[in-house]
Amino acid sequence: MLARALIERKRDGGRITPAEWRSLMSRYAADEVPDYQMAALAMAIYFNGLDRAETVALTDAMLHSGAMLDLEHLTMARVDKHSTGGVGDKVSLVLAPLVASLGVAVPMMSGRGLGHTGGTLDKLESIPGFRTDLTLARATEQIERLGCALIGQTREIAPADRRLYALRDATATVESIPLIAASIMSKKLAEGLTALVLDVKRGSGAFLPDLDRGLALARTMIELGADHGCPVVTLLTAMDRPLGRACGNTLEVEESIMALRGDGPPDLMAVTYALGAEMLVLGGVAANRDDARRRMEVAISSGKAAAKFQQIIEAQGGDPRVLDDPSLLPQAAECELYLAVQDGVVAQVEPRAIGRGITALGGQRTKVEDGVDHSVGFVVTARPGDVVRAGEPLATVFARDRDGIALGLAALRESLRIAEEADPPLPLISHRVTEAGVELWE
Amino acid sequence: MLARALIERKRDGGRITPAEWRSLMSRYAADEVPDYQMAALAMAIYFNGLDRAETVALTDAMLHSGAMLDLEHLTMARVDKHSTGGVGDKVSLVLAPLVASLGVAVPMMSGRGLGHTGGTLDKLESIPGFRTDLTLARATEQIERLGCALIGQTREIAPADRRLYALRDATATVESIPLIAASIMSKKLAEGLTALVLDVKRGSGAFLPDLDRGLALARTMIELGADHGCPVVTLLTAMDRPLGRACGNTLEVEESIMALRGDGPPDLMAVTYALGAEMLVLGGVAANRDDARRRMEVAISSGKAAAKFQQIIEAQGGDPRVLDDPSLLPQAAECELYLAVQDGVVAQVEPRAIGRGITALGGQRTKVEDGVDHSVGFVVTARPGDVVRAGEPLATVFARDRDGIALGLAALRESLRIAEEADPPLPLISHRVTEAGVELWE
Repeated sequence: MLARALIERKRDGGRITPAEWRSLMSRYAADEVPDYQMAALAMAIYFNGLDRAETVALTDAMLHSGAMLDLEHLTMARVDKHSTGGVGDKVSLVLAPLVASLGVAVPMMSGRGLGHTGGTLDKLESIPGFRTDLTLARATEQIERLGCALIGQTREIAPADRRLYALRDATATVESIPLIAASIMSKKLAEGLTALVLDVKRGSGAFLPDLDRGLALARTMIELGADHGCPVVTLLTAMDRPLGRACGNTLEVEESIMALRGDGPPDLMAVTYALGAEMLVLGGVAANRDDARRRMEVAISSGKAAAKFQQIIEAQGGDPRVLDDPSLLPQAAECELYLAVQDGVVAQVEPRAIGRGITALGGQRTKVEDGVDHSVGFVVTARPGDVVRAGEPLATVFARDRDGIALGLAALRESLRIAEEADPPLPLISHRVTEAGVELWE
Repeated sequence: MLARALIERKRDGGRITPAEWRSLMSRYAADEVPDYQMAALAMAIYFNGLDRAETVALTDAMLHSGAMLDLEHLTMARVDKHSTGGVGDKVSLVLAPLVASLGVAVPMMSGRGLGHTGGTLDKLESIPGFRTDLTLARATEQIERLGCALIGQTREIAPADRRLYALRDATATVESIPLIAASIMSKKLAEGLTALVLDVKRGSGAFLPDLDRGLALARTMIELGADHGCPVVTLLTAMDRPLGRACGNTLEVEESIMALRGDGPPDLMAVTYALGAEMLVLGGVAANRDDARRRMEVAISSGKAAAKFQQIIEAQGGDPRVLDDPSLLPQAAECELYLAVQDGVVAQVEPRAIGRGITALGGQRTKVEDGVDHSVGFVVTARPGDVVRAGEPLATVFARDRDGIALGLAALRESLRIAEEADPPLPLISHRVTEAGVELWE
């Protein structure tokens, strides 16, 4: 039995050859290798890792288990952004139309929220009529025409990764750097990219809270990209508090629309501009990051970026009027302010508690098959370090009923801490990692 | 999801509580926990181990997932022997009737051969008509009447272990000391034992070739027994060469019958007497090991032990005449001598090559569902250290046809090495391990 021998070898610290990875993953995608063998292998990899050549081979094997977007004929560069996920992270919704409006194609394939972090697909589906389940042919056509499509991982894309990802979630083998990197990269390479920008979150609300693990993922992704002729630039950004103010599907789409209209919260804009600048430079349409930044500011102030989002929404069946009238998005029946209980400094806005709060309100899944109430969530106006007075509003809960309001207030009580003094939060953007190495962000 | 959280905890080096083990294993036995989660857990256990309390709890959980032999009302002590398995290891066939003939009950539940080692059930089924699939009720009745039954693990006994064992085989997680110990002990405790003697094989043909691992298993089993009020004594014995001369089902039954008649090969008799002495002392019918040894010699010379085997065979539907006429066992169509190719000293009789040879001849399974040709195998008369001359017979192949003879001769060529000089083989019995500690065998 081939699979058993490979598990044993990985268990004992040995290496699996590229030909063996190809055979294993194509048989896994074809249901000829059972989940229980793949689960044991994933756990052995969790303990013993994969070296660079193995990670490349696994990525290739998962990539070639399915179809790819065929965008080779496009003259435009194709650059995507991937984030390891966080609470309030709606950067994709702003960034994709913004960068596409400046002449770099963004073939963006996103996931659904699971656990405490949201998913871009769920956010987009707040928009009435918006379809994320385009066929590859239709997504290709849309990218040719508009420079951007915002879609989910179709059944055709990397089916071996799709199956392995669900298995890892059920077997506590998600947190393995080479498995994470291979999973992300197999999907991103299927988009036919010429370059990729990666946003690795750090801090308590991040999937990999620890800086060293975040840097390790960045380096692995950069190596994987280099070995596939797809340059990867990574920024490490803060997820010890939510990004922006809105947390929850409708609320985040509203905030994204505000951002595209030039009225986004400063932290969201800073991260968006920083990632966008990398995309535009990698895409060859900006000379340097300062130049890229100026172009993005113009695209927003001129309304070009917002218009691009409107075109994308219309092309994917959504109601384009939401750009001018966000009240067309599903609205929560109840809302209530959360007030500071004492004078002091905001010492903490813990993002996991907010994320779990959204789940408690019905706005995120605990199981893949769950439905989502797009209307619910939080707007958290308090930021770490703010000086506040008792009775001052810190946040708002949006819920479907009074029970939801109570759950939401409880989540805010858990998340928000006011103290006499506060440690400084993590720098919003702390490191930039490229093939040349790690540099501290100025 | 409970199982996922337990996998994660074990992965991170934490402990699983007795209540959690009970819940997990009863749900696994009821098919409510999928194999892929159990496979990931088994691999995490492979890396991070189980402590003494966890091993006890897992054993209990597997034991109580099924039924037990109810032998509490017996006045006789109930003592079984378990071996970690080897090539030519037919000790059970001699030992069970021998010890039972001396007034200690032996409720022996054995397995089938898989891989390079044989299984007691397959050997017994060489005897025409012999049934190993007794119900628990019938086995209990036979033990009450004859002091011994030789049966397989029924569906009622430790179903969680049964399922986990098959899974471990397919996922390269067999070689974990706590999982091995819990698996053996859950079945042995289901026999309602008052004590257990363990034969841990060491050397190239053993399941755990390494002495340290063998000693670790011995200590874990002794602790497990102590925590269940079932004293365990372990002997470490040599498996760098086959035990006795016969290797193969019919051939081993023939050799066992010879041994019960007082004509067994010296190494087989030495191991049988050593293990039997422990059983008789633990069973309270002998004052010490010397006394036990004398009683066993009398049981053999008087014909009492052979008569007991005959009764057992008859009770389990087998043809009792095989005791007097072993030619009633299935006989191979072809046999051929294997001759020394040069003068020298026998430097090696490698048991794994012999075991694989039996499998190649059709005498052992590679898959659980395979059938077995009982007639085939080897009689290896050469022992490590023997001085031999070119052309002298070293072994005989028994096969169903000429192709089998060729396969068998090839296996012998691989196994037997003649050199100018030879390192001494492992001592036949090297260590005795009890709750008091490890002593070297004199």
